[in-house]
Amino acid sequence: MKTDVQIAQEAIMEPIGKIAQHLEIPEDELELYGKYKAKISLNYWNTTLQQKENGKLILVTAINPTPAGEGKTTTSIGLGDALHKLGKKTAIALREPSLGPCFGIKGGAAGGGYAQVVPMEDINLHFTGDFHAITSAHNLLAAVIDNHIQQGNALDLDVRRITWKRVVDLNDRALRNIICGLGGKAHGVPRETGFDITVASEMMAILCLTSDLEDMKKRLGNIIIGYTRSGRPVRAEELNVTGALTLLFKDAIKPNLVQTLEGTPALIHGGPFANIAHGCNSVMATKYALKMADYTVTEAGFGADLGAEKFLDIKCRFTGFKPDAVVIVATIRALKMHGGLAKTELATENIEALKKGMTNLAKHIENIQKFGLPIVVAINAFPTDTENELQELKALCESMGASVSISEAWAKGGEGAIDLAQKVIEATEKPSNFQYMYDVNDSIKDKINAIATKIYGADGVNYTPAVEKTIAEFEAEGLDKMPICMAKTQYSLSDDQFKLGAPTGFKITVRELRISAGAGFIVALTGNILTMPGLPKKPAAENMDIDINGKITGLF
Amino acid sequence: MKTDVQIAQEAIMEPIGKIAQHLEIPEDELELYGKYKAKISLNYWNTTLQQKENGKLILVTAINPTPAGEGKTTTSIGLGDALHKLGKKTAIALREPSLGPCFGIKGGAAGGGYAQVVPMEDINLHFTGDFHAITSAHNLLAAVIDNHIQQGNALDLDVRRITWKRVVDLNDRALRNIICGLGGKAHGVPRETGFDITVASEMMAILCLTSDLEDMKKRLGNIIIGYTRSGRPVRAEELNVTGALTLLFKDAIKPNLVQTLEGTPALIHGGPFANIAHGCNSVMATKYALKMADYTVTEAGFGADLGAEKFLDIKCRFTGFKPDAVVIVATIRALKMHGGLAKTELATENIEALKKGMTNLAKHIENIQKFGLPIVVAINAFPTDTENELQELKALCESMGASVSISEAWAKGGEGAIDLAQKVIEATEKPSNFQYMYDVNDSIKDKINAIATKIYGADGVNYTPAVEKTIAEFEAEGLDKMPICMAKTQYSLSDDQFKLGAPTGFKITVRELRISAGAGFIVALTGNILTMPGLPKKPAAENMDIDINGKITGLF
Repeated sequence: MKTDVQIAQEAIMEPIGKIAQHLEIPEDELELYGKYKAKISLNYWNTTLQQKENGKLILVTAINPTPAGEGKTTTSIGLGDALHKLGKKTAIALREPSLGPCFGIKGGAAGGGYAQVVPMEDINLHFTGDFHAITSAHNLLAAVIDNHIQQGNALDLDVRRITWKRVVDLNDRALRNIICGLGGKAHGVPRETGFDITVASEMMAILCLTSDLEDMKKRLGNIIIGYTRSGRPVRAEELNVTGALTLLFKDAIKPNLVQTLEGTPALIHGGPFANIAHGCNSVMATKYALKMADYTVTEAGFGADLGAEKFLDIKCRFTGFKPDAVVIVATIRALKMHGGLAKTELATENIEALKKGMTNLAKHIENIQKFGLPIVVAINAFPTDTENELQELKALCESMGASVSISEAWAKGGEGAIDLAQKVIEATEKPSNFQYMYDVNDSIKDKINAIATKIYGADGVNYTPAVEKTIAEFEAEGLDKMPICMAKTQYSLSDDQFKLGAPTGFKITVRELRISAGAGFIVALTGNILTMPGLPKKPAAENMDIDINGKITGLF
Repeated sequence: MKTDVQIAQEAIMEPIGKIAQHLEIPEDELELYGKYKAKISLNYWNTTLQQKENGKLILVTAINPTPAGEGKTTTSIGLGDALHKLGKKTAIALREPSLGPCFGIKGGAAGGGYAQVVPMEDINLHFTGDFHAITSAHNLLAAVIDNHIQQGNALDLDVRRITWKRVVDLNDRALRNIICGLGGKAHGVPRETGFDITVASEMMAILCLTSDLEDMKKRLGNIIIGYTRSGRPVRAEELNVTGALTLLFKDAIKPNLVQTLEGTPALIHGGPFANIAHGCNSVMATKYALKMADYTVTEAGFGADLGAEKFLDIKCRFTGFKPDAVVIVATIRALKMHGGLAKTELATENIEALKKGMTNLAKHIENIQKFGLPIVVAINAFPTDTENELQELKALCESMGASVSISEAWAKGGEGAIDLAQKVIEATEKPSNFQYMYDVNDSIKDKINAIATKIYGADGVNYTPAVEKTIAEFEAEGLDKMPICMAKTQYSLSDDQFKLGAPTGFKITVRELRISAGAGFIVALTGNILTMPGLPKKPAAENMDIDINGKITGLF
């Protein structure tokens, strides 16, 4: 059997201009990055796209992830390929992978099997430089803050309360906590700070929520970088560099076009964390895709409790997007883990464990129905799945009014997802009644409570005394009328990663609130979220190589 | 009168494929980055270029810089445009500007007046991502070092002697000296370290001295990252990630093609410091240019005592390049400053000051003659220059056997440098007898002494006790048989920036030796060289802006 990387490297790609023709993008609106990558111009939006009707929007989400894997990206790509194969004008809109994890544990990430996006090496390495632009802009703002303090601190910034850290697109635990500004008077003012990974930057969230350069400038200016000694929040715009910051995004803001193994157009753009940020690809890519394609397939990070909820309550709210159907990806194997089995016990039939684990899927179906959206469950097929298990799972979905399809995209590409595509097309024709989970003008507690009780199935929410204090501060500053971005373990519907299936009788605890005033949301942290990963004992980087002719090995 | 940025923004650029045609580069060997930038493939070298004959190589250098400015890049571009205008197959090979200084004091940098390279905004911002690749690779190695220590430190690295720091492509003084690894056991081992600006990275020097991916891997592996507790130097290759590091350079290693305002092909690639590194554009770009063009115009950093000496003794030695002519750029204004005038006193004729200052130019002419190379002095014309002053200067050059030409490239582009181009063509026809200033197998002291006495005009060299110790260590480790990279003030031929003209009766003092074993040279520091600049009170970033249509202001 061929490995993902073998399949990807053997792919014969079409020149990107040919891929663009599927979406009728004129050659002149493409900015090529090599032969197989391009950005689509801002001019194309202004002169042409904005007048067009939106096509159908399909959101792909999943059950809570387990070590067994659920294959959300693979299913998204396969679904897109299947729609393309059926002659539909299709675009896939996905997130860009981060460089850091690539050298750590993960290796690359761009789908799998016969459902991949290519050129894989480029997508996983520097791609078109978007993340480098974020790193540069983020760190320029940090440098300007420290320079402001050094040059007299006219804003009276409290060096103990600078919340704007620095970023690198690497896993580098030694940078989590640092003291900078050492070495004496000429070398800055000493203070505690640290580095996050670039994907955790608020500027990543901004890039992914912005709708144009003007909006971007406003959002960048709205970033709260810290507090004065009297406790006033200080915005980035007070440092007079929002023009320069926006300038650094002049190309990064444009959506990137690549292709799947089957030549389906894929817009890969932006990749914010799905815990401290909203975890979806860029608004720019989605809005371009909706205008260009009849069917846009996009995905959200982690399970439906995090990624889909934020897609719907944050990204859709900011943009007016409304999905026409939601695909929930599940595997028999993963559901059996939710039912209590260990990873080693998944190869044999176990209806009991499956039934127990299916509660997780059932809860997500129920949740998406609360949002008022038609659902298709995609069962990502594995060779070990038995007919009994499949029947059991199908019966559940159908009993809940969700259509269901077995996807073999990994093994067969688009061909393996034709039935899924047909059911998705049907679902998009159904009436829907989309609604958000909360009113953005509700109090912070009401908003968090709505998510916790309606989506997670919690009985309520506990707040630490520190959070109570922060809520009062945010309310006093008028910072409370923004959507909530929950930062929670992705492994459970609760805030306890070991509670699998569909736990009940629990409360979640909010331990910290952060403000992403530029991105436009309040982050509620229910546990310790690591915003700078570390490298493992033997980093994936040790396996990688490139020869004199540019042939790459070990990236995946 | 139009500003540089107005001229650049009004330029009507040719698609880069058309520019490539001047050098007969097949479309298929170009990797486009937008419409006006491209990388040239490695395949083109392997299949075609390497079999070709080299064209003529013209090195542009200058007198010691003064605040009056000498216009070296402007002259290089104008000379290239003039050769192009004369129907010669011409390529210009220049350094890439750094992002950091762009937001600090400088604004952008890509020539001036009617002798500029475009697209200016792109060249000055992220360009094709080369510097971001360096930043990523440099910091990946740093992360791997700290991870190695964290995971048990099998190599027994001395945390007090890790010489490999981190880099950002920004002016950020607060990162010069930091303590990383704080926060407890899970977050690394605390130690002192710091950040340099990306252009100061040894990997920048490596990128600029390497000849292919295989050579690059070897050089990256040779980097000395620090010392064990028993004092043994540790090479990057011992951390098993040289393959991954090389992979990050898979595109950065390819030369970038852009154009001048007059459509002359320009290869802009790499930009190492001219003090702690060798200060020339990449070997890759120069070797491609030599094969593709009949005349390649390139420049070296700072004055001829630093940039040209290193170009000849380091870059040429590693590659076998041999310039066919050297252009020394001087201005009447700058020479009058060398003669003791203040910047405010330059507008009126002053033959006395000029004569005094011309000693600086005379010394550089003498030096290049020691290298055995034909010389053309380019007088970069200013409106305040008088006929008497020009005659005085011409007489000096001619008395020394150097031809001389007045360049009006800034005001007139290539048209203003036709006479210069003709004299340069003549010079390249003259016999030459190129020789290095020292034998690489001489002792470290003999090599430094040769540069100091023959090039700087010093009576000798002092070494601090610390340097004496380092020399003994390098000799014991067999690290002494490499060329010397002098790090010295650019403002004087001596190591005292206030000694203008052509000082005599001085010794230079070497205060520190560093090893760049990957790049392949020994750095001799004669003073405090800042490898991380700071931002000024009002950073240039504050003037920059971009509007909703992408129109940029304030970048220059």
